[in-house]
Amino acid sequence: MASLFQRYCQHLVRYEDMGISLDVSRMNFGDDFLTSMQAKTDKALKDMKALEGGAIANPDEKRMVGHYWLRNPELAPAELRDGIRKDIQDSKEFAERVHDGRVKAERGGKFTRILVIGIGGSALGPQLVADALVDPWTAPVRTHFFDNTDPNGMQRVLSEVGDDLASTLTIVISKSGGTAETRNGMLEAKAAYEKRGLDFGKHAVAVTGVDSKLEGTARKEGWLHIFPMTDWVGGRTSVMSTVGLVPAALQRVDIDRFLAGAAAMDELTRSLPPAQNLSMMLALMWYHAGGGKGAKDMVILPYKDRLVLLSKYLQQLVMESLGKTLDLDGNVVHQGIAVYGNKGSTDQHAYVQQLRDGVNNFFATLVEVRDAQDGDHPVQVESGVTSADYLQGFLRGTRRALFENGRENMTLSIPKLDAFNLGAVIAAFERAVGFYASLVNINAYHQPGVEAGKKAAGEFLKVLASVKAGLNSTSRTAGEIGTALSIDPEDALHSLMHLAANDSAVKRFAGSSPAEDRFSL
Amino acid sequence: MASLFQRYCQHLVRYEDMGISLDVSRMNFGDDFLTSMQAKTDKALKDMKALEGGAIANPDEKRMVGHYWLRNPELAPAELRDGIRKDIQDSKEFAERVHDGRVKAERGGKFTRILVIGIGGSALGPQLVADALVDPWTAPVRTHFFDNTDPNGMQRVLSEVGDDLASTLTIVISKSGGTAETRNGMLEAKAAYEKRGLDFGKHAVAVTGVDSKLEGTARKEGWLHIFPMTDWVGGRTSVMSTVGLVPAALQRVDIDRFLAGAAAMDELTRSLPPAQNLSMMLALMWYHAGGGKGAKDMVILPYKDRLVLLSKYLQQLVMESLGKTLDLDGNVVHQGIAVYGNKGSTDQHAYVQQLRDGVNNFFATLVEVRDAQDGDHPVQVESGVTSADYLQGFLRGTRRALFENGRENMTLSIPKLDAFNLGAVIAAFERAVGFYASLVNINAYHQPGVEAGKKAAGEFLKVLASVKAGLNSTSRTAGEIGTALSIDPEDALHSLMHLAANDSAVKRFAGSSPAEDRFSL
Repeated sequence: MASLFQRYCQHLVRYEDMGISLDVSRMNFGDDFLTSMQAKTDKALKDMKALEGGAIANPDEKRMVGHYWLRNPELAPAELRDGIRKDIQDSKEFAERVHDGRVKAERGGKFTRILVIGIGGSALGPQLVADALVDPWTAPVRTHFFDNTDPNGMQRVLSEVGDDLASTLTIVISKSGGTAETRNGMLEAKAAYEKRGLDFGKHAVAVTGVDSKLEGTARKEGWLHIFPMTDWVGGRTSVMSTVGLVPAALQRVDIDRFLAGAAAMDELTRSLPPAQNLSMMLALMWYHAGGGKGAKDMVILPYKDRLVLLSKYLQQLVMESLGKTLDLDGNVVHQGIAVYGNKGSTDQHAYVQQLRDGVNNFFATLVEVRDAQDGDHPVQVESGVTSADYLQGFLRGTRRALFENGRENMTLSIPKLDAFNLGAVIAAFERAVGFYASLVNINAYHQPGVEAGKKAAGEFLKVLASVKAGLNSTSRTAGEIGTALSIDPEDALHSLMHLAANDSAVKRFAGSSPAEDRFSL
Repeated sequence: MASLFQRYCQHLVRYEDMGISLDVSRMNFGDDFLTSMQAKTDKALKDMKALEGGAIANPDEKRMVGHYWLRNPELAPAELRDGIRKDIQDSKEFAERVHDGRVKAERGGKFTRILVIGIGGSALGPQLVADALVDPWTAPVRTHFFDNTDPNGMQRVLSEVGDDLASTLTIVISKSGGTAETRNGMLEAKAAYEKRGLDFGKHAVAVTGVDSKLEGTARKEGWLHIFPMTDWVGGRTSVMSTVGLVPAALQRVDIDRFLAGAAAMDELTRSLPPAQNLSMMLALMWYHAGGGKGAKDMVILPYKDRLVLLSKYLQQLVMESLGKTLDLDGNVVHQGIAVYGNKGSTDQHAYVQQLRDGVNNFFATLVEVRDAQDGDHPVQVESGVTSADYLQGFLRGTRRALFENGRENMTLSIPKLDAFNLGAVIAAFERAVGFYASLVNINAYHQPGVEAGKKAAGEFLKVLASVKAGLNSTSRTAGEIGTALSIDPEDALHSLMHLAANDSAVKRFAGSSPAEDRFSL
């Protein structure tokens, strides 16, 4: 039997030029696993080639899926290439003009803050980039987000911005302009500017689809700039489109290096055979761990404070791509892989107890950043020992403690955390998700399940309006009000409870059970 | 068959006086489930009574488990009562003295920031409280954390604090003083103060066990204050001990109300029978969902930006408590429940696609805050409709969309987000965890698995030191160096890679595989 070190060397995927490696030696796949998967990996490589060649990979929306083109325009259909290059150039130029004051705030002076309004892919990518790569105290702007429709959360952000709102550039990101949370965020922001006597349009930029509703608003109100959002890039892979590039450039992230890192990873994972293909090995390990059915959760443990949002980013990328009812042949499969995690070694004090001893329903992906970026004269916490040595020690210790108890784990190592390497990591996982979808025969590029919740929310809002309009001075139960309005009594009750808590005109008289509660104006 | 509304009313756990309720109607337990669990729930109530009576519930450390006493000193053993009251009083008084400038920074002036150094329970509780309850722009101090041993992460915090370090009060939280991450954080902070010519001790407060190593350091260096940490409170339930109260009081959180909320929830969940007992119903639903074996993940979805850290807090509380190898009879059971989540409706754009359509390996807990806290004149995003209405709509929509696809979920509703209600929520989950541990016959109050990772980390640090000392000008492989030093070649390799990335004196010459890489000084 091979020693563990031999297994480590044999299976290590190592890109020496990039300094990136993936260690899968602590995943317990057998010697014949790769061979047994060959038909599937051949197909996955073929599917990816078709996708990169411009196939209609999102059949619901009849769209091509082109996020790989964003960092390699030469691969894109000829008619798209100039647009990709122009978007990159425009993002940089606009940022320069903001930084040197050619684009300035309504009342003069440079913009000192940006407020990014978006949700899902239009928030998670910019949030990851900001947290991983930007030092708020040296960046040309401080960055804030609206990523929900919680008014209290938005007020909190606005209070933090305070008087600086006059020098805050707001970036509204929405493909259609119809996403309710983002639309609401835009309106809340607009109201805040107007309350201070500021013209919202003179502080606003749109990132949106051509001819969208948001584009119409931006044109009408004379916003500072409108960046196009292409329809062949999905939200969860949009961080290298204008969605990610515009905020990144404004924060002076080196977006050329970001794209170059992704392109370099693409180049290798596009062409190398499975055993040397970092993305394919990730996908194969996911397949091995969960039996191709998502039986194990993916725990993401970056040993780096700045990568704490990586798990949240991958949660969307993986779960929205892979969590599907049907396979490509129409069989009901209920696929997916649950993803969670925060950071090491912090999480060792939170839930590694369970990972090591408890229910064995996961596999861990440790992320190592080799250069601790600890400055020239690191603090010695013991003679000759740094905090970074401890961080490395905890990573190695956890890897061992998990493995010794039969908990599978792998380690992705990158040389340092910068724009290039973050781009490479994102690209590696993007392609892994595409490969895995092929391995389990599902479509990774649509999200049919999201509509149901939105539709049900819309129905609830109609009920809410109807209940609000139907209230009068007679106190009635939810059942009585529901009957009068032809509304389900429980829907009526939830509407009434919400109104009673938020509208001082609505009175609630508690009964012995919800069915006995009475409500009136 | 009862209608859904009847099921809703029948099973709703509602505490009218508190305005708190738990809706379990969308969990598919049968009519006889509660009856079938009665022997187990009887035992759980009895176990809890013994615990609250001062039983030795943590046998590893031979300790009582007294977090319920923190908000109800009358329940505690007589000799502990005055200490509990004194800690609360001291936390408040110290905070007052900081706020009014009687305790001031070395160079004069009030403290304007606090830096909390802790990890695990000594970070997650204070972080949750700060994010949920404190408005940074109105609080008397701004709050920062060191919660890891990543030097780059710590430098980032220090850079953000900048010149304000001179008016920053650092709170070091560690029961023993031996937790490496916290010790390292303290030393990094100390170095930063000293670099600016500041006396660390004149800016430092300790929260630590009596006669601990940290207490010794604090006394020797003349720190501003030392708060005791009792040995009968575990880290993951320490937020209502000095660990949580000292930072909370400094941020002007109303800690009396925080404790009162927990006490009120305790009172009800201590005495009410299972069907009206919110904590027991939570535990029963966890049992129902996962078959008492953790077969389903717990997804926590608070529809409130300020509760985004709740899932992280519960991740520790639940997973460290329940993730155990052995049951109380010594059988190997590998228990636990995986916990993850962020916030709604944001997560609907991230992974609700998978929750609804994909692998059905979870149950969701939606958290509703009834009062949207949207100010007196909320923005109307449509005629008569607010952002808060949308937030409620998305909550209701997701609840429905999940249930319609057979995904179980429950909803915990609280009237508003304030100190009282956060205390109540924490208390509800603490007791639920204790009950669930009884239901599945495990000990919730120790964490034997955490040691393995620490031990392995310590061994790695020894190897690292040995490899560092053993390097010379001859370039050798990891195998050769390992053999010379009697060290496993893979351990040697990881040490060498770490040194090559962080110590400019160490050279690496890449070979065709890790076994062929050569290293020298």
